[in-house]
Amino acid sequence: MFRPTIFRCVGLVAKPGDARVAATLGVLIDLLTRFGIEVRLDAHCIALLEGGGSASRATLVGDDCDLVIAVGGDGTLLRAAHLISSYDVRLLGVNMGQLGFLADIAPEEVEERLAAILRGDFVEEKRLILRAVLMRGGQPVERRDAINDVVIHKWGTARLITLDTYVDDDFVHSQRSDGIIVSTPTGSTAYALSCGGPIVHPALDALVIVPLCPHSLSNRPIVVGGDSRIEIEVKTPEPDQARLTCDGEIGEVVRPGDRVLIENGQGRVRLVHPAGHDHFAALRAKLQWG
Amino acid sequence: MFRPTIFRCVGLVAKPGDARVAATLGVLIDLLTRFGIEVRLDAHCIALLEGGGSASRATLVGDDCDLVIAVGGDGTLLRAAHLISSYDVRLLGVNMGQLGFLADIAPEEVEERLAAILRGDFVEEKRLILRAVLMRGGQPVERRDAINDVVIHKWGTARLITLDTYVDDDFVHSQRSDGIIVSTPTGSTAYALSCGGPIVHPALDALVIVPLCPHSLSNRPIVVGGDSRIEIEVKTPEPDQARLTCDGEIGEVVRPGDRVLIENGQGRVRLVHPAGHDHFAALRAKLQWG
Amino acid sequence: MFRPTIFRCVGLVAKPGDARVAATLGVLIDLLTRFGIEVRLDAHCIALLEGGGSASRATLVGDDCDLVIAVGGDGTLLRAAHLISSYDVRLLGVNMGQLGFLADIAPEEVEERLAAILRGDFVEEKRLILRAVLMRGGQPVERRDAINDVVIHKWGTARLITLDTYVDDDFVHSQRSDGIIVSTPTGSTAYALSCGGPIVHPALDALVIVPLCPHSLSNRPIVVGGDSRIEIEVKTPEPDQARLTCDGEIGEVVRPGDRVLIENGQGRVRLVHPAGHDHFAALRAKLQWG
Amino acid sequence: MFRPTIFRCVGLVAKPGDARVAATLGVLIDLLTRFGIEVRLDAHCIALLEGGGSASRATLVGDDCDLVIAVGGDGTLLRAAHLISSYDVRLLGVNMGQLGFLADIAPEEVEERLAAILRGDFVEEKRLILRAVLMRGGQPVERRDAINDVVIHKWGTARLITLDTYVDDDFVHSQRSDGIIVSTPTGSTAYALSCGGPIVHPALDALVIVPLCPHSLSNRPIVVGGDSRIEIEVKTPEPDQARLTCDGEIGEVVRPGDRVLIENGQGRVRLVHPAGHDHFAALRAKLQWG
Repeated sequence: MFRPTIFRCVGLVAKPGDARVAATLGVLIDLLTRFGIEVRLDAHCIALLEGGGSASRATLVGDDCDLVIAVGGDGTLLRAAHLISSYDVRLLGVNMGQLGFLADIAPEEVEERLAAILRGDFVEEKRLILRAVLMRGGQPVERRDAINDVVIHKWGTARLITLDTYVDDDFVHSQRSDGIIVSTPTGSTAYALSCGGPIVHPALDALVIVPLCPHSLSNRPIVVGGDSRIEIEVKTPEPDQARLTCDGEIGEVVRPGDRVLIENGQGRVRLVHPAGHDHFAALRAKLQWG
Repeated sequence: MFRPTIFRCVGLVAKPGDARVAATLGVLIDLLTRFGIEVRLDAHCIALLEGGGSASRATLVGDDCDLVIAVGGDGTLLRAAHLISSYDVRLLGVNMGQLGFLADIAPEEVEERLAAILRGDFVEEKRLILRAVLMRGGQPVERRDAINDVVIHKWGTARLITLDTYVDDDFVHSQRSDGIIVSTPTGSTAYALSCGGPIVHPALDALVIVPLCPHSLSNRPIVVGGDSRIEIEVKTPEPDQARLTCDGEIGEVVRPGDRVLIENGQGRVRLVHPAGHDHFAALRAKLQWG
Repeated sequence: MFRPTIFRCVGLVAKPGDARVAATLGVLIDLLTRFGIEVRLDAHCIALLEGGGSASRATLVGDDCDLVIAVGGDGTLLRAAHLISSYDVRLLGVNMGQLGFLADIAPEEVEERLAAILRGDFVEEKRLILRAVLMRGGQPVERRDAINDVVIHKWGTARLITLDTYVDDDFVHSQRSDGIIVSTPTGSTAYALSCGGPIVHPALDALVIVPLCPHSLSNRPIVVGGDSRIEIEVKTPEPDQARLTCDGEIGEVVRPGDRVLIENGQGRVRLVHPAGHDHFAALRAKLQWG
Repeated sequence: MFRPTIFRCVGLVAKPGDARVAATLGVLIDLLTRFGIEVRLDAHCIALLEGGGSASRATLVGDDCDLVIAVGGDGTLLRAAHLISSYDVRLLGVNMGQLGFLADIAPEEVEERLAAILRGDFVEEKRLILRAVLMRGGQPVERRDAINDVVIHKWGTARLITLDTYVDDDFVHSQRSDGIIVSTPTGSTAYALSCGGPIVHPALDALVIVPLCPHSLSNRPIVVGGDSRIEIEVKTPEPDQARLTCDGEIGEVVRPGDRVLIENGQGRVRLVHPAGHDHFAALRAKLQWG
């Protein structure tokens, strides 16, 4: 029996330049069309499909969709999440390579899984989005969002940088290090994990402050509430020795005296998983436990 | 101008066998008496003060008090917290040795600080209390509380033990290690920190699961919500190779097939600090940051 | 063309109670007999083979052999190495389970590999053997050898123990912890690795001192020369709170004031590998690098 | 009784721009002059002393000296060591700030300590010097020395870089990370320690390979022999994403396909300490053990 879908318009976002993605896009578009769902494609999808298919060629994915599917890997899903962060749209990931933490549908199971999801058989997780504001002389000079992490990293120098950290206006520490990561639970299994941070369950409303190779051996990751307001003052002696990056995208040069304010933004990523999704199963598979 | 106190009856709990504690107890009793507050003493206080003072000799501290003061160190405060865990009583710590995370009044400032607190000038923090239940054959065989941590540790063996961990009935991992710690935010700066766990802010409602020297190098600390129900199944081949300890107190032998259920108990520690208390200042001092 | 062997008498040491070991022992005995080599069996081999084969039933393996083959895993090889540590005998390991660091021949390749080795086509590595002497009141009360590690571990207590460490009579530190490991390069990929120690190449004449969950966060693994004389004084307040273990075998109770002297013993393990043996390949496979 | 000195000509190397250094230089020059020792000054000394003193104004420090004294900190001593690395000259450090690992004479004890040293009452340690050669298309394009460490670090990018490591032509691993450190024992208490490396005793002829925030959690520091030939191939997809730095001095851009050869150079630093020097005492003081 054919149960109807709860979705009306689905956007597709693709990893560029991957031939296998094109095949999976074809499968997705067929299925969505069979369900009578309108399909929107981003520029990478269009480039991959070149001249193929009945999908409308709208390049604006997000504003009109009620679901966006990212086809690629965790990086593609992260990009899609940024695209739609100001809309209230659900997001689903199909993973072309090794299993991801975010994109957890494999290409070979995409038809079966997606059909179930389209009929409403899924779980939804809300993931918080950080907002980083670079302040210079009391004025905001840059605003960026991060789903994984905000990093202030030494840049173009082999010397340590000095960062003063405050949480809700309380001074935490003045730290000489390679930098500092402020990570969401989502980001806790990404770069922060490589730098010694703990794994934070995505359902926990928390942030982790992880020092990068700190000079003081007793500087350790600190977990604070998700509604904390974190402020980091850059004390490098020279300009151009530090950078702000959000989800790995390089931002503005951070100058001595600049302050980076990091807090929970308004938006949330509405991440869709197949029913029965198990976060710990993903951890076991990715981290090769057991 | 003498402002009256908001407290009516204060209990004193002492670290045994420390002569300096007796002197501080004397100062405390004088001050409390001047405020017209009834004073209760635990057995260690009485032993230290032997024959001295006008304090009533009630050895039952807690049920009738509206404040308990622990004089000693973090260990004494922890013991006092266990004593009063079933009453709704505030708790304050005077530290005779090196600054503690919990007992944060130094003996030389005790008069000034305590006078302010008695007048109501303080901040109060609620710290969660874990309840660990050892299940054998489906029956509870032991119940214990923990303010810092619940630890299942290999015992009397040099071999690793195998522990299966579940969070809210989801399987997390099967881990070969020296043991596992389930820590509150309070305990995150105690044993868990030595074992590689993160620092968790006490205001965050969270628990940390920290592996003890795990065989798999990708086993890492996991932070979950404070209302999680953690279940650990002991898979040692031999009996008598593991023990349950709560706040460092040795509990029951844990046998193969036993399950330890760990979750947030009903009670809370109502920890009192001088007004202006700064958790990060305590971290900086104790961990010698900067 | 049949090249003759360079070995005259080979001893076999088996992991007890593993049916697959018996099959491999049969293959080994056949091959050794074809080469005209005398075969000695340990008690576990005899138990496994019960009533089968032409091998002489000498239970003393080692004194008369010029090669000993351990069939089981790294644990079996370690036990064999202890058996023959006072003889100048080569040692080879066949691994029945997952690849080992020491026992690196798989059962399915045993005929081919062993035939080559018997003809002299192998590499030999010398691995150092530690000698631990427990001193009480200036007198030695126990002597033990260790190929992997000497561990002083808290025992039957949840409290930290205090250990004072000296290297060549220079005071290193007084450390509160769960214990301390002194590891050979061989042991650096065993328990010491789980406790945060570095990987030490087996060709390097060095020892690693690894603290077990030290209270001070700046206590870190220390690598010293292989001819260092390490002395550890146990400062536990109570008797029966610490134990000495060597290669996981539980030794004497260590009492307050006891000193454990650890240094390079006389003997060496003469570990045989197939020609072309690659230590880093074993690391990659075991630690799942890449 | 005035014992004569064993030194004939002493060079002074100073930290620039530090007024306290000038005062200490004055004390040193007086003392050296009283001993009848010829004094050579580097440019920074001359700038600090401007117009003062009877010292010969040779700016070439090293080739004619039999002792060089670095006045500043570990950084100044490192710079002096590079200056004289091709001469066979002893090196002594006076530390103006916090105690250093290398420069271990405090200004207030400089007269007493130096007088004893000048009379021959000292210990000498040899510290190895690494030579890093950047190979491009089989040709060396840069040669640099390192007393602490050779680092290949991602540069101007937030993405991980891929590095293939070989030891004595054996493939070790292909690692995605922020970079890699090859450290001497001297450098093991510098940057490598912040990145999770072990402390290596300076008397041990060894090198440590320390991964920088590696993506694979089982990538760990590896200790190899001091005469190992380490080769690191850079596999970044883009040019200009990695740099070679030696002792914190920024070197050449490292391009995809470049190989960095790192091995023990010819020279040695001949580090002079007051008699009775204790390496572990320096560790205890710097790392605040106990």
